[in-house]
Amino acid sequence: MHIRILFVLLFAPLIATAQSGDVAADPDRLEQRIQKLGEFGTNPEGGVSRVAFSDADIAGRNYIKDLMRAAGLSVRVDTAGNIIGRREGSEEGLPPIMFGSHIDSVPGGGNYDGDVGVIGAIEVAQLMYERGIATRHPIEVVSFTDEEGGLTGSRAMIGHLTDAALDVISHSGMTIRDGIRHVGGDPDRLDLAVRQPGDLKAFVELHIEQGAILYEEEIDIGVVEGIVGIRWWDVTIEGFANHAGTTPMNRRWDAMVTAAELTLAINRIATELPGRQVATVGKIQALPGAPNVIPGEVVLSLEIRDLESAKIQKVFDLIRAEADQISDARSTPIRFHEVDVASPPAPTDDQMRRIIAASADELGMSFRLMPSGAGHDAQDLATIAPTGMIFVPSVDGISHSPREFTSARDMANGASVLLKTVLAIDDGALE
Amino acid sequence: MHIRILFVLLFAPLIATAQSGDVAADPDRLEQRIQKLGEFGTNPEGGVSRVAFSDADIAGRNYIKDLMRAAGLSVRVDTAGNIIGRREGSEEGLPPIMFGSHIDSVPGGGNYDGDVGVIGAIEVAQLMYERGIATRHPIEVVSFTDEEGGLTGSRAMIGHLTDAALDVISHSGMTIRDGIRHVGGDPDRLDLAVRQPGDLKAFVELHIEQGAILYEEEIDIGVVEGIVGIRWWDVTIEGFANHAGTTPMNRRWDAMVTAAELTLAINRIATELPGRQVATVGKIQALPGAPNVIPGEVVLSLEIRDLESAKIQKVFDLIRAEADQISDARSTPIRFHEVDVASPPAPTDDQMRRIIAASADELGMSFRLMPSGAGHDAQDLATIAPTGMIFVPSVDGISHSPREFTSARDMANGASVLLKTVLAIDDGALE
Repeated sequence: MHIRILFVLLFAPLIATAQSGDVAADPDRLEQRIQKLGEFGTNPEGGVSRVAFSDADIAGRNYIKDLMRAAGLSVRVDTAGNIIGRREGSEEGLPPIMFGSHIDSVPGGGNYDGDVGVIGAIEVAQLMYERGIATRHPIEVVSFTDEEGGLTGSRAMIGHLTDAALDVISHSGMTIRDGIRHVGGDPDRLDLAVRQPGDLKAFVELHIEQGAILYEEEIDIGVVEGIVGIRWWDVTIEGFANHAGTTPMNRRWDAMVTAAELTLAINRIATELPGRQVATVGKIQALPGAPNVIPGEVVLSLEIRDLESAKIQKVFDLIRAEADQISDARSTPIRFHEVDVASPPAPTDDQMRRIIAASADELGMSFRLMPSGAGHDAQDLATIAPTGMIFVPSVDGISHSPREFTSARDMANGASVLLKTVLAIDDGALE
Repeated sequence: MHIRILFVLLFAPLIATAQSGDVAADPDRLEQRIQKLGEFGTNPEGGVSRVAFSDADIAGRNYIKDLMRAAGLSVRVDTAGNIIGRREGSEEGLPPIMFGSHIDSVPGGGNYDGDVGVIGAIEVAQLMYERGIATRHPIEVVSFTDEEGGLTGSRAMIGHLTDAALDVISHSGMTIRDGIRHVGGDPDRLDLAVRQPGDLKAFVELHIEQGAILYEEEIDIGVVEGIVGIRWWDVTIEGFANHAGTTPMNRRWDAMVTAAELTLAINRIATELPGRQVATVGKIQALPGAPNVIPGEVVLSLEIRDLESAKIQKVFDLIRAEADQISDARSTPIRFHEVDVASPPAPTDDQMRRIIAASADELGMSFRLMPSGAGHDAQDLATIAPTGMIFVPSVDGISHSPREFTSARDMANGASVLLKTVLAIDDGALE
């Protein structure tokens, strides 16, 4: 309880007048909609493979548009393919408060990553609509395009979606450029999707934690301090392809063996260094890739994340130093090519954190400050608007997996905090 | 020199009377013919892509038939498409001595794999023809059909070419069945191509080593002890797919890290165990295979080869025992699924080895016993006739590549040993 006491002492005076009578989100409705959304792209393991631009994604998007309309929102798709449901405010000329997340998934993903934020945002709009809660500011509920493929929609919204990114082949098989067109956007007019600093009053994203901190500590709400930075390298190990039968063990330059040693080194360095950094080899290819040929080349992915850029660099430097040793010892050169998808650490807005914390506290929920280990559209929006993020617990911390799970109660907690946060912002809590 | 002294002590008494005056193969003629053969299916890198049943293969086959006729052989194509050039012997009723190899290549192959054995065998026949060397036994020079596609011709010759194999689509785009028909065989009457045990006096195959042992040790001739057996497993490592950003290092069940540890163990076990066994991880896939997802599953190939089945089993048992430890320590199960492509070790005939060794020795060439790490038509013939194999050096051990190279001198050495071997067999050295 010391966190809450601390909060009351520090932050309570900043909070504007409370809304008359707290409106709570409906856990059953949230659960029912999450399940329904999960039918689009359902996979045999019980999760979804609803990669952006796929038929399943389009079916899910149509479902979301219908829900938005039923919540009294007028729906449009911007040129980046982002679905935006808007309700006007009661005062002329105020910038909109935007909130939402995404509904695309990784291949073999679950039903909660992104979905909870979109369904939760629609719940907030629907509660306002049903209870006749007016807001001074317009509200905009957003479902961003292709979050999992590189924050495509939010990156376009801040004007940072590059031509190179548009040419990337997405999991759908289409380039992102074609995918955007396929979902109703116009990749040639992405300028029309851009929001400038000042265009939005604030942005708030509700999301599952995707880690186990809230779940294990039995805390209701995570107030996100910031989103960790990510850097990503393609690592190429050069060996010598040769006949697996005629080449004795001591005459091999086996790129696969070097890759194995490097993978273990990466894991060890990230594990042993104090701190919360992570490093992952998620993808690997051996060439030519036949059981009877010693791999002449292996390409693998290296991803490093931390809340501080300097720490990411330090982890990488340690890995590269060890790679040099391995490469020398095995006479198989190792090259690191950084892929231009780096996102710097993105701290959230300090006032937004306080408003979210106050909202949770006033609703009688426990909460804690925490980093986000995952990337989110919020990190892009943070560059143009005061941004906050609300986390709810992930059971066992499982994510990007069919076993991803967040309870209806926790989803409702998150949506209730989101509603209270939006209303507090609308009511002047954000200066 | 200790090898030669040992040989003289052990084997010399078994050798029959030496041929009067050793006849040597002509390196220039061999080189010129290898180059000419290389024009059929030549690829931009300077090797050949003369896959079986292709137009290039047919052109090459016609060239071979012409050479056989010029060497005084009567040429026929058996129902499996094998080209057989025969000369009768001086004694009635003796079984033929067969020797030869293949002229088809892998895609992107070189000019020596198989070709040296066929051109060398024709050289032997031509030398006999030119010098008027009669033999008691008939001789048959063979160019086997589609060695690279699964020992097609030799498998048919021993009656083991299955219907399933005939239905396989070869690199030519044709099924093997259609390919056999295309080169003048009759896949419906493969029974006519079969040789029974006792039908052949012996089979000898001259071939490039495809490894670097002879080249690096500067030895002229390899006396093949046998063709190694091959077993192959698909190995599945079960981890737990999770978000690479939100999952702390100490809460991961990362199938990729386990795969890395296993790969190093496989390499170490095969390297440290005394003997010439090899074990290779040539293929790997991480699932779902995204840079931002901890792999929940990794599938890799494990191939083990040795001259002895028991040794293959021993290497596998050691790997499996270590896999069990790794799997326990990392809480990521490892499963081995054997793929049904095993070929058992095919030892060559002991007397044949001695005859080949004696022939090399008497010609003043250095030689050594060695296994063949690659598969050859000889392994099929070994099941129906006393079989021997003669290896000549491959520069740098490179094979299945346009960079494959064997010098004219080495080719001529091989052909000279082949001639002497055939004559020794004919003369009664093989009981």
